Amino acid sequence: MATLDEIRQSINEIDTQLLTLFAKRRAISIEVAKNKLLSQRPIRDQHREQELLAYLSQVGRPMGLSAHFIQRIFQLIIEDSVLTQQDFIQQQINPEVPKSNNSVAYLGPLGSYSSLAARKFLGREVSDIKEVGCSSFNQVFQEVESGNCRYGVLPIENMTSGSINEVYDLMQQTSLSIVAELTYPIDHCLLTAVETDINDIEVIYGHPQPITQSSHYLEKHPHIRKVFCDSSSAAMLKVKELASPNAAAIGSAEGGEIYGLIKLASGLANQPDNCTRFWVVAREPVQVSPLVPAKTTFIMSTTQKTGSLVEALLILRNHNINMTKLESRPIPGNPWEEMFYVDVAANLENEEMQAAINELKSAIRYIKILGCYPSEDVHPVTSPTAE
Amino acid sequence: MATLDEIRQSINEIDTQLLTLFAKRRAISIEVAKNKLLSQRPIRDQHREQELLAYLSQVGRPMGLSAHFIQRIFQLIIEDSVLTQQDFIQQQINPEVPKSNNSVAYLGPLGSYSSLAARKFLGREVSDIKEVGCSSFNQVFQEVESGNCRYGVLPIENMTSGSINEVYDLMQQTSLSIVAELTYPIDHCLLTAVETDINDIEVIYGHPQPITQSSHYLEKHPHIRKVFCDSSSAAMLKVKELASPNAAAIGSAEGGEIYGLIKLASGLANQPDNCTRFWVVAREPVQVSPLVPAKTTFIMSTTQKTGSLVEALLILRNHNINMTKLESRPIPGNPWEEMFYVDVAANLENEEMQAAINELKSAIRYIKILGCYPSEDVHPVTSPTAE
Repeated sequence: MATLDEIRQSINEIDTQLLTLFAKRRAISIEVAKNKLLSQRPIRDQHREQELLAYLSQVGRPMGLSAHFIQRIFQLIIEDSVLTQQDFIQQQINPEVPKSNNSVAYLGPLGSYSSLAARKFLGREVSDIKEVGCSSFNQVFQEVESGNCRYGVLPIENMTSGSINEVYDLMQQTSLSIVAELTYPIDHCLLTAVETDINDIEVIYGHPQPITQSSHYLEKHPHIRKVFCDSSSAAMLKVKELASPNAAAIGSAEGGEIYGLIKLASGLANQPDNCTRFWVVAREPVQVSPLVPAKTTFIMSTTQKTGSLVEALLILRNHNINMTKLESRPIPGNPWEEMFYVDVAANLENEEMQAAINELKSAIRYIKILGCYPSEDVHPVTSPTAE
Repeated sequence: MATLDEIRQSINEIDTQLLTLFAKRRAISIEVAKNKLLSQRPIRDQHREQELLAYLSQVGRPMGLSAHFIQRIFQLIIEDSVLTQQDFIQQQINPEVPKSNNSVAYLGPLGSYSSLAARKFLGREVSDIKEVGCSSFNQVFQEVESGNCRYGVLPIENMTSGSINEVYDLMQQTSLSIVAELTYPIDHCLLTAVETDINDIEVIYGHPQPITQSSHYLEKHPHIRKVFCDSSSAAMLKVKELASPNAAAIGSAEGGEIYGLIKLASGLANQPDNCTRFWVVAREPVQVSPLVPAKTTFIMSTTQKTGSLVEALLILRNHNINMTKLESRPIPGNPWEEMFYVDVAANLENEEMQAAINELKSAIRYIKILGCYPSEDVHPVTSPTAE
């Protein structure tokens, strides 16, 4: 019988072949995008995707692969392909950003979730990016409004803790446009400065939010004392300075890497698939190709007349505009009115959308478009043959 | 430039190669299981998994593949590999079931989510299965207790609507053992008997739960009248009988296939990743290999003394037994006591677990083991280099 090392060697070879095929498939998906750009056909073709899943389930069955497994794997592959095509088409219709101006503002020092999301947005060549860590959301807006940074990255919603109202409120006053959305997976890890054992940890440093989100894990280690810090980065810095086998920080694996910390454990959060949604803002709005699924975000305040919100929502529905989010915020000093934040799955330049906006303008007190940007939600199709 | 059809042909070829590699990798994972069975090493090796993810991220980066994409894909592949190995090892230590006795009882007619979960559990050769659809959970228990069916499949928890208390209550009185758990993805679809358009649908038939879970979708089509049925199968049957372009049922794609219905739309549920957890019960308990992650489920009732639950939980913690679920149920006719359902991530035959059970017996009023079975939760590892 082969040794475990020999078997693992075979697995590594298969995995490398898989990676090569994934890369090849991604390259071909650019050809699809070029083709669709010529024929002006939309990127997503759910009928083709469904057919593909059904076909692959059929081919995979005699190989012993379950339809459920095939479906889950290929939903990821299709999502990657769709996002790759979107990026390509968006690059074609928007002027290229000079490399020298790849600058971004975000909340917190390097290693904060906002800074990691900013790096994800601008891609991997971090050496080319000017990164400006800010001490408040307000400062992030100012850095971009003044032209000091090209982009600002703002968290707007966490799956566990909900909307970040401060950012919503600041969006009311800014002249900036939303040019992109992105979601960033949040994985709380236990990070230490030196090699140690979980049973030797006596004190844990962390921002209150990650500590709360990891309560189940921490309850299992009740001997550990918790110390709250202003940010996850501050917690990591503190642990780095202490250089003790008895102190740990709660933070992201990537943040830990930046501070040279060791990952003792991961997956600390009670909810396993935690993630945060971010907006990217800039001075100039972005063009979204009609081939690419778009989102438009706007704020509106309705009149005091009862039913005025319903009337506004009916206008959207009558134009077949699909609302994906509705969030209300009180207006300071005006307890009788509310400001509504609305996301719709529509391109701002779409005729129906323009008609809806015009009707809204006459029906409500105030409307302001915050931006139109490519949608990151790739809603998966399912194949009827999946188990 | 290649035509879209030509490009798609190349994609299909790559996808078939991917399937072949997935199947090859799964076959090799059986070799890993054999090897581990010999050396008595546990199936999961999170250190090796983390190293693999880090290695693959590094190999994939120059190919233009993001670490995030690689991590998500390989978490699925690793999960599949772990479950395949678990199945193989479990087959080695448990006597083979004679094919003739592959019989299963579940709630509802063919096409119910319980019947689909039963088919998933027993594998794909449905022709060999005796399937007994029951009209109540009580009947499911009786079919297995009497020996008429080898297995009973019982839903115990839905991600959206919570625990199914009736099943919990019946578990108190049965002599059956839990021998497996499984999760089944719930995807509510709009099903019609004839080709039609969503705008032509006037009435929708469905069980109240799927209708409630699809409220966001249905609000967008306020002209559709809702008619509640006893089960999703009853709704599908009704629509089949009507054979009208104006009537639709809410049900699963697989159920629709059984009734020969057409899938007009899928993904109707408000919450996209809805799934239901099931227990499989049988007259004989199952053996779980120490190499395989196991779960044990028991019920206990504590004394009226304050702090008696805490004391019980401390006993588990002192033996390093990780509790994965705790659910309390009132005891009929006894308002001062509660019955607790506890899942722990431990093998019942494990020494520490035996010691904990013995201590519990002297500390609490009543304890009953419901079963020990392989855990279906494959908690993914993450690699520190993932973006």
